[in-house]
Amino acid sequence: MTRDIRFTLVGLGNIGRNLLDILVHRQEAIARDYGLRFVLVGAADSSGAALDPAGLDMAAIRDHKLVRRGVATLPGVGRAGMSALEMVRAVTADVLVEAAPTNLQSGQPGLDCVRAALDAGHHVVMADKGPLVLAFDDLMAQARAAERRLAFSGTVAGGLPTVNIGVRDLAGSGVERVEGIFNGTTNYILTRMEAEGLSYAEALQGAQAAGIAEADPTLDVDGWDAANKLIIIANSVLRRPTTLEDVTVEGIRALTLDDLAAARAGGKVIKLLALAKRMGDDYALSVRPTALPKDHPMARTGMWDMGVVYHTDYMGVISAVIEAEGPVATSAAVLRDMINLYAAS
Amino acid sequence: MTRDIRFTLVGLGNIGRNLLDILVHRQEAIARDYGLRFVLVGAADSSGAALDPAGLDMAAIRDHKLVRRGVATLPGVGRAGMSALEMVRAVTADVLVEAAPTNLQSGQPGLDCVRAALDAGHHVVMADKGPLVLAFDDLMAQARAAERRLAFSGTVAGGLPTVNIGVRDLAGSGVERVEGIFNGTTNYILTRMEAEGLSYAEALQGAQAAGIAEADPTLDVDGWDAANKLIIIANSVLRRPTTLEDVTVEGIRALTLDDLAAARAGGKVIKLLALAKRMGDDYALSVRPTALPKDHPMARTGMWDMGVVYHTDYMGVISAVIEAEGPVATSAAVLRDMINLYAAS
Repeated sequence: MTRDIRFTLVGLGNIGRNLLDILVHRQEAIARDYGLRFVLVGAADSSGAALDPAGLDMAAIRDHKLVRRGVATLPGVGRAGMSALEMVRAVTADVLVEAAPTNLQSGQPGLDCVRAALDAGHHVVMADKGPLVLAFDDLMAQARAAERRLAFSGTVAGGLPTVNIGVRDLAGSGVERVEGIFNGTTNYILTRMEAEGLSYAEALQGAQAAGIAEADPTLDVDGWDAANKLIIIANSVLRRPTTLEDVTVEGIRALTLDDLAAARAGGKVIKLLALAKRMGDDYALSVRPTALPKDHPMARTGMWDMGVVYHTDYMGVISAVIEAEGPVATSAAVLRDMINLYAAS
Repeated sequence: MTRDIRFTLVGLGNIGRNLLDILVHRQEAIARDYGLRFVLVGAADSSGAALDPAGLDMAAIRDHKLVRRGVATLPGVGRAGMSALEMVRAVTADVLVEAAPTNLQSGQPGLDCVRAALDAGHHVVMADKGPLVLAFDDLMAQARAAERRLAFSGTVAGGLPTVNIGVRDLAGSGVERVEGIFNGTTNYILTRMEAEGLSYAEALQGAQAAGIAEADPTLDVDGWDAANKLIIIANSVLRRPTTLEDVTVEGIRALTLDDLAAARAGGKVIKLLALAKRMGDDYALSVRPTALPKDHPMARTGMWDMGVVYHTDYMGVISAVIEAEGPVATSAAVLRDMINLYAAS
């Protein structure tokens, strides 16, 4: 006997599309293991929206997006020009999955969608970092007031349960230090420079060819993406209201093979490290290229890896690493959040 | 404004005593961060029990146990000869913390205490493995029927959130393979043999001197402890009803420095690996000395480490390692379970 959970989906890029693909393949297992059946009742992309209270065809939408067609063109259910916000407001649902492209200036359209969803009594699961970076405390307060959950485990290192380990598994202990490799693109670049002697430019080209760096890779290589993830961790795990102003950021553009060789001569490896270091009652937050001892858990991460190390007072040092080629693991993280809204564990 | 959570504690060895110590030090932080105040209303050890509905003095009990005195000798509150089960039945509480010594033949006294607590409407947090190894499905069914939670994250690799990652963070994805270093004693021994060239006997002596191996180390060195942890993982993460009969077990007693050298010559490291490997619809379960490639995440674990690797279909490969010298991290795991019964996350 399964319980139907109606969800809306904003954003049908890789994350949204892969989420639908996983759901199509795993529907039976999810029903068997959790007694849940996720029903897509509204979806929005740049073309407009599609709505069906009886449930949209998730496989059809996935296939539509694979050939880059908008959901507004779906027969019967499509609504050309309808905005994501309008879709969220038009639909009765239990959960909003917010996977709109991250906008770090305004947080839109995700931010308005999240607020509207909470206002309408929907839980929210986020892959979009913008609203969290810009308005973490407001959103959490709104969720609490609405007695709804706002989950975002996929926003910091994709499938790696960075947020979940920090928030739930360290509960009761004090966190002294957090070290993270939170940006896959720069770890790919630095790992290939180190292991294969590629120049920065060559390794960046490789990342672009592999589809993990944009034509404009600024967000990744200048450290902003890693900083945003550190901001989310500082707000959630460290309970420290944090914005970008609180983080010292330095990217990897200026790194040369000579820099890496000098580090290697000292038994070290250079990684773009996100760091929260306890300073009295507060934490110093930074993202910068850092020479780590070569047996440091983060020094050993490979070209497809991201990771985190939590140094605690009573719980020792806990490190976690994910090896995942491509973006599917982030969609799997969104799915775990959806399930955990309802699963008794 | 805090909410009082009354708890009972069975077992005042290292785990129980350190739990009280952490609570004494972290009471203020827990009240501030979670709005919770844990009040100890009953405690039992081999001397008998102590009861006080207004709350026992946790610091005093901790100090009592540090000098190996029984709680039954505490003035006013002590009850000589009262059993743990009698204490659980006599006390009104919200949570039982079951940290009795693990008994793998009968599961007692823990098993009866867990059943009595659930019967009386208490949640249960366990550090004791015996009842879970012997009666996992029964206990989970009883908890579900009682609409109460049974948490046990401290039972598999102490502070490392092995169970939590497996059950909650992989939700929705399929687990193909689990590899674990679940026993600290044998990892200490094998790491020192490998790194320092100590013989098995010398390394075992070191473990005993360090307080992490008993005078009779059979449970650890013959692989039974690792097997019990694998049983708990198979039941909870893999949802596969499992008993010791399902696990092929081989310990480390017969390993020599020659074995380690032969592995090293092939670029490998020998570790006592707990393994769940998918075989069709089922899993093959084993604990045995295994030669791992030296860059395998488990090959790199150090003398104070334990770890796990989850290989999934959609969520990549997630590995986690804890470095913790001594038993305190297990008590921290019990505390996180206590908090997570109540914390909105």
